[in-house]
Amino acid sequence: MLLAQSSWMEVEEYLKRSKSILVPVGSIEQHGPNGLLGTDAICPEVIAKRAEQLTDMLVAPTFSVGCAQHHLAFAGTITLRPSTMIASILDWTASLQRHGFERIYWLNGHGGNVATVNAAFAEIYAQRSFSSAVQEQDILLKLQNWWQFESVAALCKQLYPVGDGQHATASEVAVTYAAYPDAQKQVQMQPKIAPTGTITHAQDYRRQFPDGRIGSDPSQASVEDGKQIIQAAAEAVAAEFERFAKS
Amino acid sequence: MLLAQSSWMEVEEYLKRSKSILVPVGSIEQHGPNGLLGTDAICPEVIAKRAEQLTDMLVAPTFSVGCAQHHLAFAGTITLRPSTMIASILDWTASLQRHGFERIYWLNGHGGNVATVNAAFAEIYAQRSFSSAVQEQDILLKLQNWWQFESVAALCKQLYPVGDGQHATASEVAVTYAAYPDAQKQVQMQPKIAPTGTITHAQDYRRQFPDGRIGSDPSQASVEDGKQIIQAAAEAVAAEFERFAKS
Amino acid sequence: MLLAQSSWMEVEEYLKRSKSILVPVGSIEQHGPNGLLGTDAICPEVIAKRAEQLTDMLVAPTFSVGCAQHHLAFAGTITLRPSTMIASILDWTASLQRHGFERIYWLNGHGGNVATVNAAFAEIYAQRSFSSAVQEQDILLKLQNWWQFESVAALCKQLYPVGDGQHATASEVAVTYAAYPDAQKQVQMQPKIAPTGTITHAQDYRRQFPDGRIGSDPSQASVEDGKQIIQAAAEAVAAEFERFAKS
Amino acid sequence: MLLAQSSWMEVEEYLKRSKSILVPVGSIEQHGPNGLLGTDAICPEVIAKRAEQLTDMLVAPTFSVGCAQHHLAFAGTITLRPSTMIASILDWTASLQRHGFERIYWLNGHGGNVATVNAAFAEIYAQRSFSSAVQEQDILLKLQNWWQFESVAALCKQLYPVGDGQHATASEVAVTYAAYPDAQKQVQMQPKIAPTGTITHAQDYRRQFPDGRIGSDPSQASVEDGKQIIQAAAEAVAAEFERFAKS
Amino acid sequence: MLLAQSSWMEVEEYLKRSKSILVPVGSIEQHGPNGLLGTDAICPEVIAKRAEQLTDMLVAPTFSVGCAQHHLAFAGTITLRPSTMIASILDWTASLQRHGFERIYWLNGHGGNVATVNAAFAEIYAQRSFSSAVQEQDILLKLQNWWQFESVAALCKQLYPVGDGQHATASEVAVTYAAYPDAQKQVQMQPKIAPTGTITHAQDYRRQFPDGRIGSDPSQASVEDGKQIIQAAAEAVAAEFERFAKS
Amino acid sequence: MLLAQSSWMEVEEYLKRSKSILVPVGSIEQHGPNGLLGTDAICPEVIAKRAEQLTDMLVAPTFSVGCAQHHLAFAGTITLRPSTMIASILDWTASLQRHGFERIYWLNGHGGNVATVNAAFAEIYAQRSFSSAVQEQDILLKLQNWWQFESVAALCKQLYPVGDGQHATASEVAVTYAAYPDAQKQVQMQPKIAPTGTITHAQDYRRQFPDGRIGSDPSQASVEDGKQIIQAAAEAVAAEFERFAKS
Repeated sequence: MLLAQSSWMEVEEYLKRSKSILVPVGSIEQHGPNGLLGTDAICPEVIAKRAEQLTDMLVAPTFSVGCAQHHLAFAGTITLRPSTMIASILDWTASLQRHGFERIYWLNGHGGNVATVNAAFAEIYAQRSFSSAVQEQDILLKLQNWWQFESVAALCKQLYPVGDGQHATASEVAVTYAAYPDAQKQVQMQPKIAPTGTITHAQDYRRQFPDGRIGSDPSQASVEDGKQIIQAAAEAVAAEFERFAKS
Repeated sequence: MLLAQSSWMEVEEYLKRSKSILVPVGSIEQHGPNGLLGTDAICPEVIAKRAEQLTDMLVAPTFSVGCAQHHLAFAGTITLRPSTMIASILDWTASLQRHGFERIYWLNGHGGNVATVNAAFAEIYAQRSFSSAVQEQDILLKLQNWWQFESVAALCKQLYPVGDGQHATASEVAVTYAAYPDAQKQVQMQPKIAPTGTITHAQDYRRQFPDGRIGSDPSQASVEDGKQIIQAAAEAVAAEFERFAKS
Repeated sequence: MLLAQSSWMEVEEYLKRSKSILVPVGSIEQHGPNGLLGTDAICPEVIAKRAEQLTDMLVAPTFSVGCAQHHLAFAGTITLRPSTMIASILDWTASLQRHGFERIYWLNGHGGNVATVNAAFAEIYAQRSFSSAVQEQDILLKLQNWWQFESVAALCKQLYPVGDGQHATASEVAVTYAAYPDAQKQVQMQPKIAPTGTITHAQDYRRQFPDGRIGSDPSQASVEDGKQIIQAAAEAVAAEFERFAKS
Repeated sequence: MLLAQSSWMEVEEYLKRSKSILVPVGSIEQHGPNGLLGTDAICPEVIAKRAEQLTDMLVAPTFSVGCAQHHLAFAGTITLRPSTMIASILDWTASLQRHGFERIYWLNGHGGNVATVNAAFAEIYAQRSFSSAVQEQDILLKLQNWWQFESVAALCKQLYPVGDGQHATASEVAVTYAAYPDAQKQVQMQPKIAPTGTITHAQDYRRQFPDGRIGSDPSQASVEDGKQIIQAAAEAVAAEFERFAKS
Repeated sequence: MLLAQSSWMEVEEYLKRSKSILVPVGSIEQHGPNGLLGTDAICPEVIAKRAEQLTDMLVAPTFSVGCAQHHLAFAGTITLRPSTMIASILDWTASLQRHGFERIYWLNGHGGNVATVNAAFAEIYAQRSFSSAVQEQDILLKLQNWWQFESVAALCKQLYPVGDGQHATASEVAVTYAAYPDAQKQVQMQPKIAPTGTITHAQDYRRQFPDGRIGSDPSQASVEDGKQIIQAAAEAVAAEFERFAKS
Repeated sequence: MLLAQSSWMEVEEYLKRSKSILVPVGSIEQHGPNGLLGTDAICPEVIAKRAEQLTDMLVAPTFSVGCAQHHLAFAGTITLRPSTMIASILDWTASLQRHGFERIYWLNGHGGNVATVNAAFAEIYAQRSFSSAVQEQDILLKLQNWWQFESVAALCKQLYPVGDGQHATASEVAVTYAAYPDAQKQVQMQPKIAPTGTITHAQDYRRQFPDGRIGSDPSQASVEDGKQIIQAAAEAVAAEFERFAKS
């Protein structure tokens, strides 16, 4: 069930049987020569939409722009400052709590979001922790990176034993190609596998990684691989969401 | 050209011929018994995607959650506080300016965003106005509600001479039905045309407008109407964007 | 009854018969060659003081500095950033609510304040809307531009059929001349009627409108005209405030 | 020269001969049974307007609402939170700096503002101190309480040897009566001289000081006394402003 | 009793007999040629630790970095902006209130903190003052500069009749030398007694006071003097804290 | 070299040979029945002070209060909200950059700080990334948890093969006992090894972990063990800091 395509009455109905919701959270940032700027938002979104077909799950709209300051030296990247992202996550959460949601599962597509999302969780919990009053409504927040399920990691390793990489990975590009086959781009990678290093600010990033990739050869990506990864990830998400909803 | 499905190299190429970009901006909020929670995000997004086929235009990802505090008494509504939305628009704009964009055209789907988006524009301009230094890069921000083009307003008036309404309008529901035909909902409206009134906070809103609609009978909406409206709006957007890009 | 010249006991007495208050809200910004920097604060203030003589009304001190970033290239202009103005309006409102006021009528003298004041209203309402608890105290916020009453607009049109303009208008200058006759300035306008255009940031504003006026010939302003406008506006304000207080 | 009644061209002219400006800063808060809610704004304003007749001085509009949280249990009090007041002072200062002002003299009417205004000064200076770059434009900020000039303190002591007090003082009430004779209020003080104590939050304040006064008998105030105090303070301000402008 | 070296169970035990706590608050800033960067944090900390041996008192960790923007032109200085310091004091206070503390005594080592700490107190009290609800838990905040006890001031005057000074004073350097004898530095002062003046921003400060001192000759400082000052201050703190705890 | 016990001239001297500094960052939070509230601040501080004896290193004052909202249901815990901690880290960093530091090594004592410190790093880098201008001064920020060096983890595993745990660990308690032997507390643990689980807000934490420990038996801690751990960690820090300073 997709929140954006539901009516408020349908969501009210859903809340009678579940207090849990999934929010895909991504980033708009360069993903190398053949990767899409929307990769990190597209991946959790398509996985969530597939998972939603496997279990009773409400999927919120995608929180699409995240923390991508380090990619700003590449055209098209859009970022929030961490402080803005924290404020935004507070508002999304307060809105969902208003309706009675007590379990929010953030399915994440971008490693650079992890610190800030967890800081936001602490900010939300802190509001509650500063009070010694007993509060009726509970709240549980969970962040899950889609590529870190064991089954998914194993599949990616099998598909791309060499050059899956750290940024603009073959596996994430494959997922987006499965989602938007027309957006595939044929680019010769130079060098075949990109260098690795440490991430700081945008100018330093571009100096180290001139075409945007880190450790990857995403020219390996294919629609077929992407479909497999989406299916594996969706199954893992559906199963974990069910456990989370009951926790 | 859709930014989320482009590579950074393609955006860099686009910037050589244009400094302009369109950002659809919406809201996630109840739209009555048969309207979708995502209506205000879906409308500018589908219109922008159609317009992009009519002219050389870069379309950013949709800024999907806006100012919807007054709808919070209806399940599924998600809102930013105005101060958070201002911070977010600042960050989006600063990101786009970083790449050299000088014209940002915000195509809006929600009347409740207008004040806050304009306040954000003033906040952005103020950063620049406080300095007396000459600045090389220019910046021009424009907000346009899709339903306020003359041609669009005339078409909606012709399609729905009675009960187009102010919120959960027949015309916006039609646009979303054209975009997502499977999401159509058959609901008997009670009363046929909803009451009108003044908007304040969420509890007051629900008291006045028990099913969420204001002044509308959205059961008139159809996929066919929606297609016409999208086409009319897309033509108006494409033409205005061209003028804006040259201004 | 003027709050600033009342004792707290007198206000406490007033609150027994009314929960409503009027706040004049203005701006300190250039108003062309013969207009006063305080024009936008002076206009709602003098109109409110006249209206207060026509009905039982409490008038708060004037919120005198508003959103005027676009005028910063002209000496003497003082502005708040929109985010600061929102914070200030929150504090004024919280203070007034503390005493039991439930209807706050903001009589506005500056078009550039409209977006930010409305964003502030949404921020205030949002605080309440995020909670599902029933709240005893009600709050209703209303913004009214003094020049937009039908009777006032008609009078200005009659007095200045040509060249009333959009900024540094003949009518607002007339109101300030009626309030402070000694502050009248004799300046030859060059050109007679100023150009019109779009407002962005300060440097762009000064480039387009070298002497600060937009579309106006304020040399038409006179004390006598100002008195008429004040009277017309005060009557409209008094009548509307009475309705608002009972709503 | 009053900024609010000047044109931008007149201020531009003034800036050729002086980089200094005076800003009256006050508070809207209860001042006991016969004192005006606007007392702390009125005092520095009328003193500044008198001083302006004695020397070449530009007087900004009054920053009328300050830090008065401790008076909120008395009707009519309006306060900013300290953080809002700091943000506002930053914006006023940035605006004035934009025009070339380098000396801002804040003439203060409220003891409760002192900490926050000084914190704001430190916030403004800090923006500059974090940079090691040489900056052409200088900035000097000064806060002066009108009642702390030696000559003024001596006069008040002579006029009211007993019961001038700490809040709702006889001397400040006298100044406002001189400014607005029609606003005088005849109230029997009970007890004759109010108690003294420590200021914390609003409920505690009202518990300790039931009618709002601290240590004072303001029934001694008269228009005639007020005139003398205004004259003495204006002379002190004019002299100090001249020194400040040259420093 | 030192909070940092206690267990939570020991603090819970303490709260049964007292609701009061002392927080040393300092600054990390240059203190002239022979003074320590930590001087303003070390002084209240060692005095508090000595006082804690004289009475039943809980000493919180030292709030060590304060408002020192004016010293930033000297290496090693670390400052918070006033707005950050206010936010931090709010959080410390909210944490302590959560446990039931109702009296917080801030023992201050830095004159430059006074305005901002008092602004923070007003911000905290304001949260409470905006509400008209009766609140069970009380809160009392007090700021005390260690050098302003009469007994301490008299002792310092006796030890250093000439050149104790205003910044990098002989007495504060003596206190730190008593605390850390190994950190003593032998430096010839040039001139013997430093100049005096007004504090604004960092560049101006360094221009006026090239070696960082104001009005002092801290080469007079000795371990023996420091011990005496610590003892005198500790006795004064212990006595005042006892009164405060009972107030 | 300890910054707090150095003069500004000594730091200026240090900056001629190194642009690197170490900041211990901790937390004030409950550490079970026999652990100190200051544990997480004490550990990195004593390790840093030992490391400073092994290499040329400047050690800043300890950033002692961090993110501990989840421990607020235990007396004595003090926390910053993540947003406040981010603002504070920005100010510390801006201060250090002002003096020319380009490498800041944060030695962390608290797992709960990791997300927020990394979010702060991204906020700092973002300020720079939004600009396309070339910047002369570089900045590199690094966070290192003291317990995660391989040599340290191996030693702790060897000392406490069972029940080192996740919070209030035997190893961290041992470090604090080595630092403050007088603060050792003899407490019988009940149960011997604490339960494990997931961390959310304070009330939930206390419900799950009634005495504050997670997975640990800290009664194993001893001064002797602590000394060994300090030595191992100090050697690892010194070696890594040297590499970092040269990177």
